[in-house]
Amino acid sequence: MPVGIPPMPKLNPVPGITLGTTNAGIKQTQRDDLVVISLHPDSQVAAVFTQNRFCAGPVTVAKRHLEQTRPKALIINSGNANAGLGQQSIDMAEQMCRAVADADALATAQVLPFSTGVIGEPLPVARIAAALPGVLANRDADHWAAAARAIMTTDTAAKGTCRVINSSQGPITLTGIAKGSGMIHPNMATMLSFIGTDAGLDQACLNTLLKQAVAESFNRISVDGDTSTNDACVLIATGQSGVHLDETHPDYADFANAVRALCQELAELIVRDGEGASKLIRIHVSQARSEQEAEQVAKTIAHSPLVKTAFFASDPNWGRILAAVGRAGLDDLDTRKVDLWLDEVLIVQAGGRALSYTETQGQQVMNRHDITIQVKLGRGNAASWVLTCDLSHDYVRINADYRS
Amino acid sequence: MPVGIPPMPKLNPVPGITLGTTNAGIKQTQRDDLVVISLHPDSQVAAVFTQNRFCAGPVTVAKRHLEQTRPKALIINSGNANAGLGQQSIDMAEQMCRAVADADALATAQVLPFSTGVIGEPLPVARIAAALPGVLANRDADHWAAAARAIMTTDTAAKGTCRVINSSQGPITLTGIAKGSGMIHPNMATMLSFIGTDAGLDQACLNTLLKQAVAESFNRISVDGDTSTNDACVLIATGQSGVHLDETHPDYADFANAVRALCQELAELIVRDGEGASKLIRIHVSQARSEQEAEQVAKTIAHSPLVKTAFFASDPNWGRILAAVGRAGLDDLDTRKVDLWLDEVLIVQAGGRALSYTETQGQQVMNRHDITIQVKLGRGNAASWVLTCDLSHDYVRINADYRS
Repeated sequence: MPVGIPPMPKLNPVPGITLGTTNAGIKQTQRDDLVVISLHPDSQVAAVFTQNRFCAGPVTVAKRHLEQTRPKALIINSGNANAGLGQQSIDMAEQMCRAVADADALATAQVLPFSTGVIGEPLPVARIAAALPGVLANRDADHWAAAARAIMTTDTAAKGTCRVINSSQGPITLTGIAKGSGMIHPNMATMLSFIGTDAGLDQACLNTLLKQAVAESFNRISVDGDTSTNDACVLIATGQSGVHLDETHPDYADFANAVRALCQELAELIVRDGEGASKLIRIHVSQARSEQEAEQVAKTIAHSPLVKTAFFASDPNWGRILAAVGRAGLDDLDTRKVDLWLDEVLIVQAGGRALSYTETQGQQVMNRHDITIQVKLGRGNAASWVLTCDLSHDYVRINADYRS
Repeated sequence: MPVGIPPMPKLNPVPGITLGTTNAGIKQTQRDDLVVISLHPDSQVAAVFTQNRFCAGPVTVAKRHLEQTRPKALIINSGNANAGLGQQSIDMAEQMCRAVADADALATAQVLPFSTGVIGEPLPVARIAAALPGVLANRDADHWAAAARAIMTTDTAAKGTCRVINSSQGPITLTGIAKGSGMIHPNMATMLSFIGTDAGLDQACLNTLLKQAVAESFNRISVDGDTSTNDACVLIATGQSGVHLDETHPDYADFANAVRALCQELAELIVRDGEGASKLIRIHVSQARSEQEAEQVAKTIAHSPLVKTAFFASDPNWGRILAAVGRAGLDDLDTRKVDLWLDEVLIVQAGGRALSYTETQGQQVMNRHDITIQVKLGRGNAASWVLTCDLSHDYVRINADYRS
């Protein structure tokens, strides 16, 4: 039960990028589970990957290939994470790339592999190879939406969005898709995102841009800094608009803002599709001594199963939020300076229940679908935020049944 | 649905300690919710408390009173945590102590207060005061079991156990009770434990003994170092056996071991009664560079909702355990050296699925109620362990309904 996910808008094609999809029968489902994204030879590609030490084979291979040469194609499968099998996973990811290279006259290193799904089962590489001719024949600039659907796992809705940036040299297209719906540890259930633009950017500039955008978006839903074995976010700049951007360009800031906003929109869609989610919870922590400290408090709240179940029950059990603040590791926190709001309702003032607070006020807020928790620590000027969702019966059902 | 909780044994009385209970109607339930424990004047008392900065009023007051004088009585209520109301909570905890002092001819500082239950609602002190004459009249050395029942909140079973240590100077009695059943963040749902012995110990020695025992027991189920606003563990030494112990005494080690074992037994009972628990999971991590590192990995596994739901589903989805190891913060972990067992079954060898492993083996282990996860990191000689339970539908139900 996703929380207010709007229908996916029509996704603009990005000159220089075509996408093909098919059903390769990876997990014997009826829907497409294989995607190839082909890139114009001028394209630059930046990518950020999971920090998990048990990273999947495709992550190891994608990083290696990116170091060797410029990518010309991406291959993505859902239904199997190709992870947890040590060297075998790496070998199978290489085979997946070679299959694309063979079928499309590329070098193996020019292909980046991505996988998402169950961990620990051998990837059916032969089935993928057999499906490739169909995928390549299917390639089209208009297939972003089909690709968004094909990369889904437990997602209940395909996720994609786009922007147009009107630069002084003409319009720039920006289109992105994402998948992911595990919420408590979002990137445990693998977050994948592929974003394309027809702007031209140097490799270094593209890398910086992506890193900054991810820090302010996908990493804000990365409660606990957890990352799955397979997480990846890729930004492709084809240069086909003829607009070349660098940090000194007058339109660079607008473009960077658009990339960040697009990533934030995709990240929020992932939370809204949180497994079993019935509420979107924004947690803002301010008046902290440092951004890091604010983030630590926000994540402690976001991570608390007791807070999450209270939101699921629409129960204004604010004591659980307060207890999370109290154990967030700020050893010298003066609780008498802490204020707490749920949306517009002041709940805790100066460390204790606000005199003005009534249970009716709290109940009114808790009945909403989008709720903001605001904590003011009263000890500095730094702030941070995270997005999370509630913990419901359905979360347990989905995750207990995932493999069955 | 507790996991194999044995019936509570008969709890031996501890010479020098009497306990009274009654139903004070704190949360309008039918069962006892108020306890007074009276101590022989020779008693020494050690206590450890929550590290939560938003500690409850009774915690602040108990610490203050312990600094001022030797306790002669403890008062404990369930049904209301007397927390989250700032100075008001502190005032009400003081009032609760004064009521005992007035009724039993003590000084207010000679009384330690303890509360457990919902956070953020005013404690009905008048009802407690009105019930006190009945509690005091009810005091008896044989009322440990009744006290164990009266301190329960969401617990499904009363928890208590005892030991007899045969010292060279005669037998020493050791009896303890505990409550607590929140599992993911166990001490979020408040862990309280009261342990009595008729051995005589100096204050400093008693403090050390309790701290060491708690570190190896209750803190092993304290996933994430989280502590609720109210957690407390109290060790009372009445000295009435005539056996005085200090660190140089030949029976000291036996006694210290017995205290630790008793705390471990109570801690395990709390996990077995984890909210909605259907499985007890022991996590052993060895071959770590340091104990701290081993504990970090063990707690990351214990904390993962994805691991916990897989255990609830009896699904040998070992990839989730591996992913937790990979994101436990060991940046230089060589995954090729990691081995993983579920009970006697080798699942992962040298970082990948063991060749000998079959899904049938994994399924057999997962069908059990008590399961041990063993992780060998292959990078040192240190080890640590934690106890946890699975995450079930009932966890969500209990915590979503807690206040209704």
